[in-house]
Amino acid sequence: MKNFEYYNPVDVHFGKDSVEKIAQLIPKDKKILFTYGTDSIKKSRLYEKIKTLLMGHNLVEFGGIESNPDYTTCMTAVEVAKKEGVDFILSVGGGSVLDASKFIAAAIHFEGGDPWELLKNKKSVKVKKAVPIGCVLTLPAAGSEMNGYSVISRRDTKEKLAFGSRYLHPLFSILDPVLTFTLTKEQTANGIVDAFVHVFEQYMTHHGEGPLQDRMSEGIIKTLIEEAPKVMTDPDDYDSRANVMWCATMALNGLIGSGVPQDWTTHMIGHELTAMYGMDHARSLAIILPSVIARQMDSKFEKFVQYGRRVWHITTEDKRVAFRETWQKNTDFLRSLGMLTRFSEQGITNENFDEIAERIVKRGEKLGENKDIGKNEILEILYKSL
Amino acid sequence: MKNFEYYNPVDVHFGKDSVEKIAQLIPKDKKILFTYGTDSIKKSRLYEKIKTLLMGHNLVEFGGIESNPDYTTCMTAVEVAKKEGVDFILSVGGGSVLDASKFIAAAIHFEGGDPWELLKNKKSVKVKKAVPIGCVLTLPAAGSEMNGYSVISRRDTKEKLAFGSRYLHPLFSILDPVLTFTLTKEQTANGIVDAFVHVFEQYMTHHGEGPLQDRMSEGIIKTLIEEAPKVMTDPDDYDSRANVMWCATMALNGLIGSGVPQDWTTHMIGHELTAMYGMDHARSLAIILPSVIARQMDSKFEKFVQYGRRVWHITTEDKRVAFRETWQKNTDFLRSLGMLTRFSEQGITNENFDEIAERIVKRGEKLGENKDIGKNEILEILYKSL
Repeated sequence: MKNFEYYNPVDVHFGKDSVEKIAQLIPKDKKILFTYGTDSIKKSRLYEKIKTLLMGHNLVEFGGIESNPDYTTCMTAVEVAKKEGVDFILSVGGGSVLDASKFIAAAIHFEGGDPWELLKNKKSVKVKKAVPIGCVLTLPAAGSEMNGYSVISRRDTKEKLAFGSRYLHPLFSILDPVLTFTLTKEQTANGIVDAFVHVFEQYMTHHGEGPLQDRMSEGIIKTLIEEAPKVMTDPDDYDSRANVMWCATMALNGLIGSGVPQDWTTHMIGHELTAMYGMDHARSLAIILPSVIARQMDSKFEKFVQYGRRVWHITTEDKRVAFRETWQKNTDFLRSLGMLTRFSEQGITNENFDEIAERIVKRGEKLGENKDIGKNEILEILYKSL
Repeated sequence: MKNFEYYNPVDVHFGKDSVEKIAQLIPKDKKILFTYGTDSIKKSRLYEKIKTLLMGHNLVEFGGIESNPDYTTCMTAVEVAKKEGVDFILSVGGGSVLDASKFIAAAIHFEGGDPWELLKNKKSVKVKKAVPIGCVLTLPAAGSEMNGYSVISRRDTKEKLAFGSRYLHPLFSILDPVLTFTLTKEQTANGIVDAFVHVFEQYMTHHGEGPLQDRMSEGIIKTLIEEAPKVMTDPDDYDSRANVMWCATMALNGLIGSGVPQDWTTHMIGHELTAMYGMDHARSLAIILPSVIARQMDSKFEKFVQYGRRVWHITTEDKRVAFRETWQKNTDFLRSLGMLTRFSEQGITNENFDEIAERIVKRGEKLGENKDIGKNEILEILYKSL
């Protein structure tokens, strides 16, 4: 096992009606920036409920945060927050609203010029202070509710970058599965795929490095595979919604990746697809993951066969055949959730592949747990997905 | 899934040489009570190393904390700490030293008379403030390094009681597997059994309540079963030591028990055996667990069969036979670690059984996930272990 540090102080309140506790979780003297996305929290009456619960608290609203939250939107919120003297952010929504809130929280106190530096030069420019954040989660997917990471997009420069800090863990996260009953089938499927791929990228590397971490990862994946058809057919099934929600949180709270190698190639390329084509995040992952596995077959061979045997109960003795059978099962699972796994299915050609690969490599380090995925390998992965 | 709260702010530093970071983890201006147990940290030179690393820090030593730490010892430490104006406790040792340190940390600031009230009347008397604690762990077993719980014994009244608080999570815990190389075979086995039973008591209840929690629990147990023979035959195997250490921490950091029923019957009866006979903690659990499973067969039937199928690969179709086969495998595993699973093997008769059962029931609530284990059932369990 590799050396690691694990620190996760998020106060998680999970379950039906947990939102009722919100007033006691935020000190009365705080001036709160209440961030949210589209009108969905108004339709579901969550907006109204929170306003009622926080009666007597000092609220400033900032709605309209888009999916793949944009730097420009965030900077507008920073201006509002500074003008109003905000000292708490309450994020109500999915990972996009929360990621935006994290950036806003860091940007309010940033003293090194343009806060974009926190993403652009994340190796040297660090968060030193941030406004505390509370979260009410409505979409299980990103895992942002129990970590200190955030991903922000810039549509003007076609960039989508991640950053993180110990100061950006939410102070609390309220996870009520009932709030996810109103998600569309597409949102539900996207969330499951996002969580699924998070686990994959911390798990599908070398064989034999962390037996407990492996089993926890396999446990999350098996549970997602088991619960996915249930929530897709019965969106009001509380237990299945709860299981999916907890899986998504556990997928990216740092535990399964502690002490083991990781390979974020799929996310790194996926982010570029979103930046380039405006493709939904989960859908960008679903198109890339199968090709990453195929391209990296040699280095991931033993681990992928273990995955097939333990998760998909593949018993075929010949490991190469078992590998192919597992690959098919894995890809079929993504497709069963409505994911397209080929560019051609979405009318995308190879036209921008070179630019995509170029954008990734010019940021420096090679990708993959062995740092062996450079421009040529990225191109191979992209072409495999055509 | 049941509603739950999960909060665990411990800053974990895991791996070889992590102790080197200790000076930067404790603020320079703190007056530190350096707590430890027997001479083993002197023999292993850890004592010396820590003194060197903390040169320049203000240290007050308090050694000699015994296994199943005693109230009287702790109260002596509280006196020293108050006299010296201690505002940080550094616990170096296993769960006993850390549990004692937690009690000391709470007792220093306790204003309601005798701090024993925190254990005796834990439902009404709560910790409101505690001195911050840092931990260097030398024995993977109790899981105290990543939770806010503590168990303290009183030899004068033959009591062994637990209490817990959000204020008692260690600020940091340093987990270096190398520090466990010098444990005796008996200490190593005891630690594995303690962790194993911790998982069991959060897992072996109703069937179907938390599929992810189940798989995480099964993952810890499978890993312990796999690693146990390795560390027992090769005590310097770093990876196996690391896996056992991380399993023991994960077994009681609150995660696997979140959202699911729990049944701490084995620990509750085990504590009484330690208080009554001075029996080692793990050994008290090993003698009780098999009988709890046998006595509670009806309510735990489906879950125990699931455990047998998933962990021990029992394929026998007849569930009642599968149950018995699993029970045997489980008991054999405990015995493979040198545990005795019958009182008669230790020369203990039924003489004090009534008093033991009486002591538990007079504390109030019945035991078990269904609260159906009262005096008669406790006696049945004890007699099954004769």
